[in-house]
Amino acid sequence: MLRRIYDEELVNGQCYSNLHYLCKNIGPRLSGSPNAQKAVEWGKKLMDSYGFDRVFLQKVMVPHWVRGAKEQGVIIYGNKRVPVAIAALGMSVATPKDGITANIIEVHSLKQLDTLGAGTIKGKIVFFNRPFDPRFIETLRAYSTAGDQRFTGPAVAAKYGAAAVIVRSLTESIDNYPHTGTTEYDSAGIKIPAVAISTIAANQLSELLKQHAQLKFYLKLNCKTLPDTISYNVIGEMKGTENPDKFIIVGGHLDSWDLAEGAHDDGTGIMQSVEALRLLKVLGYRPKNSIRAVFFINEENGDRGGDKYAELAAQNKEQHIAAIESDLGGFTPRGFGFSGASPAFIQNINLKWKKLLEPYGADRLTAGGGGSDIGPLATKSPGVVLIGYLPDSQRYFDVHHSANDVFENVNKRELELGAAAIASLIYLIDEHGLN
Amino acid sequence: MLRRIYDEELVNGQCYSNLHYLCKNIGPRLSGSPNAQKAVEWGKKLMDSYGFDRVFLQKVMVPHWVRGAKEQGVIIYGNKRVPVAIAALGMSVATPKDGITANIIEVHSLKQLDTLGAGTIKGKIVFFNRPFDPRFIETLRAYSTAGDQRFTGPAVAAKYGAAAVIVRSLTESIDNYPHTGTTEYDSAGIKIPAVAISTIAANQLSELLKQHAQLKFYLKLNCKTLPDTISYNVIGEMKGTENPDKFIIVGGHLDSWDLAEGAHDDGTGIMQSVEALRLLKVLGYRPKNSIRAVFFINEENGDRGGDKYAELAAQNKEQHIAAIESDLGGFTPRGFGFSGASPAFIQNINLKWKKLLEPYGADRLTAGGGGSDIGPLATKSPGVVLIGYLPDSQRYFDVHHSANDVFENVNKRELELGAAAIASLIYLIDEHGLN
Repeated sequence: MLRRIYDEELVNGQCYSNLHYLCKNIGPRLSGSPNAQKAVEWGKKLMDSYGFDRVFLQKVMVPHWVRGAKEQGVIIYGNKRVPVAIAALGMSVATPKDGITANIIEVHSLKQLDTLGAGTIKGKIVFFNRPFDPRFIETLRAYSTAGDQRFTGPAVAAKYGAAAVIVRSLTESIDNYPHTGTTEYDSAGIKIPAVAISTIAANQLSELLKQHAQLKFYLKLNCKTLPDTISYNVIGEMKGTENPDKFIIVGGHLDSWDLAEGAHDDGTGIMQSVEALRLLKVLGYRPKNSIRAVFFINEENGDRGGDKYAELAAQNKEQHIAAIESDLGGFTPRGFGFSGASPAFIQNINLKWKKLLEPYGADRLTAGGGGSDIGPLATKSPGVVLIGYLPDSQRYFDVHHSANDVFENVNKRELELGAAAIASLIYLIDEHGLN
Repeated sequence: MLRRIYDEELVNGQCYSNLHYLCKNIGPRLSGSPNAQKAVEWGKKLMDSYGFDRVFLQKVMVPHWVRGAKEQGVIIYGNKRVPVAIAALGMSVATPKDGITANIIEVHSLKQLDTLGAGTIKGKIVFFNRPFDPRFIETLRAYSTAGDQRFTGPAVAAKYGAAAVIVRSLTESIDNYPHTGTTEYDSAGIKIPAVAISTIAANQLSELLKQHAQLKFYLKLNCKTLPDTISYNVIGEMKGTENPDKFIIVGGHLDSWDLAEGAHDDGTGIMQSVEALRLLKVLGYRPKNSIRAVFFINEENGDRGGDKYAELAAQNKEQHIAAIESDLGGFTPRGFGFSGASPAFIQNINLKWKKLLEPYGADRLTAGGGGSDIGPLATKSPGVVLIGYLPDSQRYFDVHHSANDVFENVNKRELELGAAAIASLIYLIDEHGLN
C-alpha cells in the first residue's frame, strides 16, 4: 500500500499545482484579511472537488491585525541617516504619527533587562540581538531558543519603560528580509511598538553602536488591531467504515503572514493534508476510522482555529485517535515526532513501522512533536496522540515569516514525498492502530 | 569528538565562503580551460594556507573540448520557426557550418532504434525523449535509468545513419535549462552532433510532432575537441602518526561543466573535502593514518584525474584503507554508501556507528556508493573501501549540468553539515578502522 501511495503521488500528485494556485492566485492571507476569506472559500471548493464524504466549515472569531503602510526604520548618527529593513511584529501597536526617535540599548537576553533595570532602559529602544545558535542540528531548536526575544521581549522591555523594541530576525540566514511573527504583550501592561529587523541590518546596527553608542533610531509603524472578525476552519472528511465516530486528522494552517505567499508556512502543510486524503481516496482505500484534513485558521496570531476545533471535538464527543500536523515546511521528509511519547511507545512504533518507512526516508520516529493547531486537542480529546510531521529543517527559517516565503522556494518532489509520507502514516494508524 | 567537529563547522565553517570564491571568482572550469587552471592554482593556495603537512599536484593530461559560440536549435513547421533551448553534449562534434536541417524521429529507448532500423532512422535527427521515472525515491536511480539516452544514445543512433541526436535533459525538473553532460561515441564509428534540449522544449517538440509529423529541426553546433592539455589533481595531506603509508582519502572533482559555476557539481564536494581536513587539523587531531583531500581533475569528460591518482597510488605502493567521494551535491546529509559491501559489513558498520551518527542525521549506512573519481582505486589499491557521501537527492538534478548550478542554490548549513559528517566518518575510520 505504501508503494502505491508513493507511486500515485510521484506520478499524479496534485499538491504542487494546488500550492501554486494558493500562492499565486490568493497569496498572503493573514487572519481577518479578504485573502484569508478567499483562501477559505477556495479550500472548501478544492475539497468539494475531491468528493470527500463531507466537507464543512467551522466558524471562528479571529483577531484582525493590519500592518498598514510600510514601516520605516532609520539609524541616525552624526549627519548620517541609514534606512534599514524592518517589519512590525504581528499584533504590535503603532508608533505615534511622527514616529519614535530614541537611543538604542542592545541586549542579548531577557534576563539582561532585569540586570539593567528601568534606570538604563527607560525611554530607550531595546534591541534584542541574540543570534540563532548554529550548533543545533535541528533549526527548530535554535528558533525555540532564540524565540523568547520576539515572543515576550517587548512585554518585558515595556515593564522597564522602553520606548520600543527591535528584535533580530529569527533566522540563521544573513539576509535583508525582516522575519516577522507574533509577539505577546502582557495584557495588563503597556504595549510598545515592536519590530523585526533583518539580520544584515541587525549586524550593521550592532557594529555602528560600537562606534556611536549615542546613535538614535527612528521608527515609524502604522499597524493596528481592528475588531475580531469571522473566519473558518475548513474540513474534509472520509467516513470510517468501522468506527465512524473515531477520528484521525491531519492538518496545517490556512492563514499566513502578510509579507509573502505563505508557501512553506503553511501552504505546504495544508496542501499535503488534503493531498493525503485525496491519495487514500483515489487508491480506493476505505478507512476503518473517519479521517479528516483540517485547514486551521489563525495559527500565526491567535491559534483560534485550533482552539475552536478542539472545543467542538469535545462538544460533539468526537474521539480522536491521532492528530498529525504539518507546519515545518514542505521539505524532504525525515519522519514524525510523537508528542510526549514514552520510550516504550517510541520503541514499539519503531519496531512496527520503521522498516516500512525506511525505503522512503521517512523513518525517524521520535518523541516530541505535535504542533500549535492540534495542541488544544490534548485536553479536549483525551487519549489523542499528537504527531508532528518532521521534514528536513535546514532551510525553513531562511524563508519563515519573511517576504522570501514564496512558491519558488518549494521543491515539487520534496513536497510530494511529504504528502506521501503523511498518507502512509495515516494508513498505518488506521489499519493497525497506534498501540 | 563528533560533537566538536560539528560545533567547529557550524560556528566557524569556511567551506561556504570558499565555495563562494570558487563560484564567483573562478566560475565554470571545464577541463583544459583557463579557468580550470585558475582553479588548480587557487586550490593549491587554499590548501597551503591551511598548513597541511604536504600539498602537491599530480600532472594529468586531459581532454580539451570547447563549446564555441552558443548553439542554435529551431523547430520548423509550416512557416513557423520556434527557437528552443539546447546545448551540445560534452565531447560532441560540431554540425557543418550551415547546420543540419532534418526530420525528427522521437524514440523512448535505445532498443527502439534497433526495431526501427536504418530504413527509418537514416538521415533523421533522433530525439530521445524518455523522461525521468519519478517513482524512484532517490533521484540518482532515475538519472542512471534514463542516462543511457545521453551516454550511448548518439553512438547507437549513428550506427543507423542518424544525422544528429537530441536528448531530453536528464532532470525531473520541468524547466528551460538544457542539462548537458558527456556522451561516449563509439571510437570506431561515425560521430554525429548531439545536444541536450530543455525539458520544456522537449515537451513542446513532442507535442508539435504529434500535430506536424513532418516538422524539421535546425541544429547548429560550434564545438570542437582540441589536443589534450596538461592539468592537475590537487592534493593536501595530513601525515599519519602510526601508519604514514596507509591512506584515507576524501575527494570530489575540480572541473565542472562550462554552462555555470559548478556549485553543486562539484564545488561543494571539493570544498567539503578540504574542509574535512581543516576541521581535523584545527581540532588538534593527529591521525593514525595519512589523510588526504583530493581535488580530482576531469571527472566530467574523461575521468583522467581519477585514473591518474589510482595509477600513481599503485606505482608508489600507497595502501588505501578508504576513499570517500562527495559528488552528489551539497545537500543535507543522509549517510554514506559503501561500494560492493557485503550484508555482514553493512550490519557491522551500523552496529558500530549508526548510533553515533544518528544525532546528526547522517546515519544511513548502506551498500552501494562510491564514485567516478575513486572508482579506479578498486583495482589499483586492492582492499580499499570505496564510500560515497549520500546527501538528500531531491534537488540535485534540478541544477545538475545546467546554467542553474550556481552558488545561490547552495544552502550554507546543508553544505556545512555535509563537511562535518564527512570529517566525522574519516575520524571514525582512522580511529577505529572499518572492520
